[in-house]
Amino acid sequence: MIKAGIIGATGYTGAELVRILARHPEVELVALTSRTYAGEDIASVYPALTGYAALPCADLTPEEVLARCQVVFIALPHGHAVPVAARAAAKGVKVIDLGADLRFRDAKTYEEWYRVPHHDPELAARAVYGLPEIHREAIRGAAVVANPGCYPTSAILGLAPLLKGGYIDPATIIIDAKSGVSGAGREAKVTSLFVECNENINPYAVAGHRHTPEIEQELGALAGTAVKVSFTPHLLPISRGILSTIYASLARPVTEAALRQVYQDFYTGEPFVHLLPPGRWPHTRWVYGSNNCHLNLALDGRTGRVVVASAIDNLTKGASGQAVQNLNLMYGFPETTALAAPGLCP
Amino acid sequence: MIKAGIIGATGYTGAELVRILARHPEVELVALTSRTYAGEDIASVYPALTGYAALPCADLTPEEVLARCQVVFIALPHGHAVPVAARAAAKGVKVIDLGADLRFRDAKTYEEWYRVPHHDPELAARAVYGLPEIHREAIRGAAVVANPGCYPTSAILGLAPLLKGGYIDPATIIIDAKSGVSGAGREAKVTSLFVECNENINPYAVAGHRHTPEIEQELGALAGTAVKVSFTPHLLPISRGILSTIYASLARPVTEAALRQVYQDFYTGEPFVHLLPPGRWPHTRWVYGSNNCHLNLALDGRTGRVVVASAIDNLTKGASGQAVQNLNLMYGFPETTALAAPGLCP
Amino acid sequence: MIKAGIIGATGYTGAELVRILARHPEVELVALTSRTYAGEDIASVYPALTGYAALPCADLTPEEVLARCQVVFIALPHGHAVPVAARAAAKGVKVIDLGADLRFRDAKTYEEWYRVPHHDPELAARAVYGLPEIHREAIRGAAVVANPGCYPTSAILGLAPLLKGGYIDPATIIIDAKSGVSGAGREAKVTSLFVECNENINPYAVAGHRHTPEIEQELGALAGTAVKVSFTPHLLPISRGILSTIYASLARPVTEAALRQVYQDFYTGEPFVHLLPPGRWPHTRWVYGSNNCHLNLALDGRTGRVVVASAIDNLTKGASGQAVQNLNLMYGFPETTALAAPGLCP
Amino acid sequence: MIKAGIIGATGYTGAELVRILARHPEVELVALTSRTYAGEDIASVYPALTGYAALPCADLTPEEVLARCQVVFIALPHGHAVPVAARAAAKGVKVIDLGADLRFRDAKTYEEWYRVPHHDPELAARAVYGLPEIHREAIRGAAVVANPGCYPTSAILGLAPLLKGGYIDPATIIIDAKSGVSGAGREAKVTSLFVECNENINPYAVAGHRHTPEIEQELGALAGTAVKVSFTPHLLPISRGILSTIYASLARPVTEAALRQVYQDFYTGEPFVHLLPPGRWPHTRWVYGSNNCHLNLALDGRTGRVVVASAIDNLTKGASGQAVQNLNLMYGFPETTALAAPGLCP
Repeated sequence: MIKAGIIGATGYTGAELVRILARHPEVELVALTSRTYAGEDIASVYPALTGYAALPCADLTPEEVLARCQVVFIALPHGHAVPVAARAAAKGVKVIDLGADLRFRDAKTYEEWYRVPHHDPELAARAVYGLPEIHREAIRGAAVVANPGCYPTSAILGLAPLLKGGYIDPATIIIDAKSGVSGAGREAKVTSLFVECNENINPYAVAGHRHTPEIEQELGALAGTAVKVSFTPHLLPISRGILSTIYASLARPVTEAALRQVYQDFYTGEPFVHLLPPGRWPHTRWVYGSNNCHLNLALDGRTGRVVVASAIDNLTKGASGQAVQNLNLMYGFPETTALAAPGLCP
Repeated sequence: MIKAGIIGATGYTGAELVRILARHPEVELVALTSRTYAGEDIASVYPALTGYAALPCADLTPEEVLARCQVVFIALPHGHAVPVAARAAAKGVKVIDLGADLRFRDAKTYEEWYRVPHHDPELAARAVYGLPEIHREAIRGAAVVANPGCYPTSAILGLAPLLKGGYIDPATIIIDAKSGVSGAGREAKVTSLFVECNENINPYAVAGHRHTPEIEQELGALAGTAVKVSFTPHLLPISRGILSTIYASLARPVTEAALRQVYQDFYTGEPFVHLLPPGRWPHTRWVYGSNNCHLNLALDGRTGRVVVASAIDNLTKGASGQAVQNLNLMYGFPETTALAAPGLCP
Repeated sequence: MIKAGIIGATGYTGAELVRILARHPEVELVALTSRTYAGEDIASVYPALTGYAALPCADLTPEEVLARCQVVFIALPHGHAVPVAARAAAKGVKVIDLGADLRFRDAKTYEEWYRVPHHDPELAARAVYGLPEIHREAIRGAAVVANPGCYPTSAILGLAPLLKGGYIDPATIIIDAKSGVSGAGREAKVTSLFVECNENINPYAVAGHRHTPEIEQELGALAGTAVKVSFTPHLLPISRGILSTIYASLARPVTEAALRQVYQDFYTGEPFVHLLPPGRWPHTRWVYGSNNCHLNLALDGRTGRVVVASAIDNLTKGASGQAVQNLNLMYGFPETTALAAPGLCP
Repeated sequence: MIKAGIIGATGYTGAELVRILARHPEVELVALTSRTYAGEDIASVYPALTGYAALPCADLTPEEVLARCQVVFIALPHGHAVPVAARAAAKGVKVIDLGADLRFRDAKTYEEWYRVPHHDPELAARAVYGLPEIHREAIRGAAVVANPGCYPTSAILGLAPLLKGGYIDPATIIIDAKSGVSGAGREAKVTSLFVECNENINPYAVAGHRHTPEIEQELGALAGTAVKVSFTPHLLPISRGILSTIYASLARPVTEAALRQVYQDFYTGEPFVHLLPPGRWPHTRWVYGSNNCHLNLALDGRTGRVVVASAIDNLTKGASGQAVQNLNLMYGFPETTALAAPGLCP
């Protein structure tokens, strides 16, 4: 049994980690930190866990957490993970950071988009970007994994086969993404209120969302050239789910059938990524509460563009499920441990 | 491995059975019947199952299903289960019927409320009402289990300790129940359309819903006297979940603390029924997609009434999860097999 | 043109007042107060108003507001209205208070349930409870109107004909009410977040909600005797709407048809209250965004109880629409001015 | 008073026409046709109209309707309007067709995308495309108006200023549109069920939706050159609302401020189209139930693309509200008659 801790356990990604790990036969949760709910049992904060998890939240210092754990999940707002991760790495405690602090190989990009200084560019440089379908081998040997953002996970999985194979013009990529409200976290703010989100859709952070450079870093590596994308996120009245609808112009003539084969080959053997049959477009509820990613594509002969749709659950494959997938890789457990479940649908 | 079949596999309760059984280590699904989707794989009808279940739906006769299975789940509209169940019983195939046809010990009550003749009152008389918390021992030995209705499950679990202990006046019971739309099934009808249900709540079948006599049968057995209840169902804009808010006048003086102890004692050791701490009222999303039932109560000194709230997922504890719980009991598997999971929340 | 102001204009009831008054031909809004949004135009806070209302919010003192207005709407949290209302009354500015501070003729009841001292019991004693269907004549002549709570509006309209006629036993009244989230206001709190409310229903404030004594005051006056009710509110995943499902035992034999006639007679000529035809149960979306109240009832012969359902929009008939209805009465405008619209449905 | 009829009155667009016209001082509804609900009052089919509209639905022949009316709204599935419209035109009854049959100046385009023959290309050629902001003068004099589709309304209003001014490369236009479920109509089909749509988003008809050529016809006329667009519709769990997020590459250097001025100028004096202030992106609930269109744009310097968001209510500005706007123009009534209302928000 691996002893694990969660720093920032009472946000939505923290709670999702607890939910998933409650069924993990090889992991024992030994530390849950929270300031707001210190002293309360996690099942008191999230009563859905009643009977499935019983561990008090505590306002522990990073040192106290690290002293108890072999691996630590960090689920803090950006800007807070670096010191914890650095100390963990120094002590030999493995780190899976669900925030943005260690996602950029070049800390300058982080500083530019997040507008805060980065205090450990060297750590950032050697952290591994935890998208198993792209970086599986590196994750296996990693001490520090930077778990991908939710939007980047959906976008990169949707585009990787096309860019790797050189099928599209990287200058033409447009990602129109739609997310459920849990992506905004559990912070009490007016824009996340039920009445503000219900019966509504709106774009936000147009031409400026911080997941843009993260997408571009990974797409650039796949394409072998710098990539700039148009990325527009939207807020949807659903709790969980991200759909990315992706547009790009073909770089060379190819049939839709050939492109489908490219995806099949790229994701062959992947337990969580599924190309749906022709004409069956991804629905976010088909991956609801699961670690799955559903994909489909069409080639539009009239415009010469390929259209890809990519659906994930932002809290699972887009955050905590992927974090557990990374843990499984880091410890040599079967990759689907605690994650092998279909979406909750209907 | 038990070989199991589902007759009527493509409705919501059928799909929920497939979802749950996909993780059951002791059950192999060998037959799924459907007229509408004959020839299609179940993962084509419910793409959430992609990668987790692969079995074609077929328009099989009952005989064909019974020839392949040791146990059969019947998920048909009422009026269709009796001939199948009778044949299965005759052949030694165990039956778990998710419909209403075998829920009444006295077939006359069925005929009165469902307004169709009952063709096998003897079979109805010996079927076991599959509410494990009340009839566990009988279920273990049963050949035919009548799986309870969704509303009755929530109402009976909420009231059983009070009636068993004689704490309330059975003539004063009022059950105000609220259900998600999946309870209406997957039939294409205007009243189940998104636009008709969204941003809405309405009562329906007031003073005449068919779950009324089912509730009364079980409450009467617990009380040791005939019971008549006011039962009002409501339709809610949620996919899954039932909340029953229950009112009854005290039959004798008792404290709220004493009543809480009554519930604790009644449900001690139950894996799925949880009395929440004082003041934490059940939320249906806390049991979302799970086999759990959350309860709480208050004693209103001003009016001399006890108020109980009982929350379940109508498709899981209220239907398919409970059916699997019954299967586990009938075959001696650990009762929580394939069911030990917290609600999907957030 | 009447000059009107709104104190607390940027909460949901304030915004609903602006929306309604934007179409009122006899009222000019001249003052909108807000601390949070001082300096912003109301159409900046609620962009739906773009092109329909243009008035800056300002952090005005009550004196500044009263100096500009002939009538003032107070939409503040309870405990804040009394000093404003007292000053307004002294200056001859008419007051419509949407909070609870002046709803109780006996300020002791207020103090007991709201657990704050009442600073002007005399003002409370002479304020008029602004439910036009019950107190129309008093409202016409009122200087200070206490606009009813949302739950009480639905409950009282549902029960008034029965109590006035002595058809039910007042000791048996149970009100099971369900409300949309806008009833919780625009305050940023975790319990009002989209993710916390979506796909959920839960009871709250069981046996202790502050609208209980308000309902009891008005029902008692109708019945001519003290009335105690069981009242349980629930939170629903809809933005607007309240449904009250009401149970009571008959006090004397009567037919359902006779009871229907009682309602028809009681509400004859009422522009906003509609008894629906037999069997058509109220849906909250049928009154969505309107000042209408839809009612229906059934007599359950098996239990001797009458069941009433009453649906309103909590922000309109349950708050701001009713406030404008009261203004219309106070100034002798046609009672439906700015309010004569069907619900927005579909 | 103009006498008006609605052919196909009980679908969602028909009901929305009744709702709007209930407040129109110059229009009297004299005929509502319906096969399904013949003999029922419209307020029985849509109880929200109780007290606001009382007219029986009848299975009238077109001749019977035309004999009673000066203007007729046709709200039928495509393929059914042409014979009615032809007869109406012959009799001098004005026609506003809410379907697709008369939207294409070149009936061949219709035949190609709708895959049915067009029986009156000459009538199609002289029908006026009823988008007042583009074709106001022609509408004033029209005998037959083809009311625009919902998606085209949002897309064309979003792009018109850019194309008219030559600011973007017409070959680069991508329209990612999201619609509420009412756009699918009131037909009972599984894909429109609450449980299928709730907690979900999905694309559909990718690279093949029939609104594509309608958008292209109008954009081409504005651009003065043939235009081909990528258009992807998505289904959202909201009842009403369309958001189109539009991407195009600049054709020549321009600042964002200059583009904003282009929109201001283009829509100056328009009562229903509002460019929101910088950074305030359209929310569909801000136009909920209204005839308004909210727009905003950003120029993304990194990619050289302009991003436009355009929000309407698909049933109002996207269908029935625009139809009434057209009627107002055709009869010389003030254009905002019965339509001058802010969105219902909150």
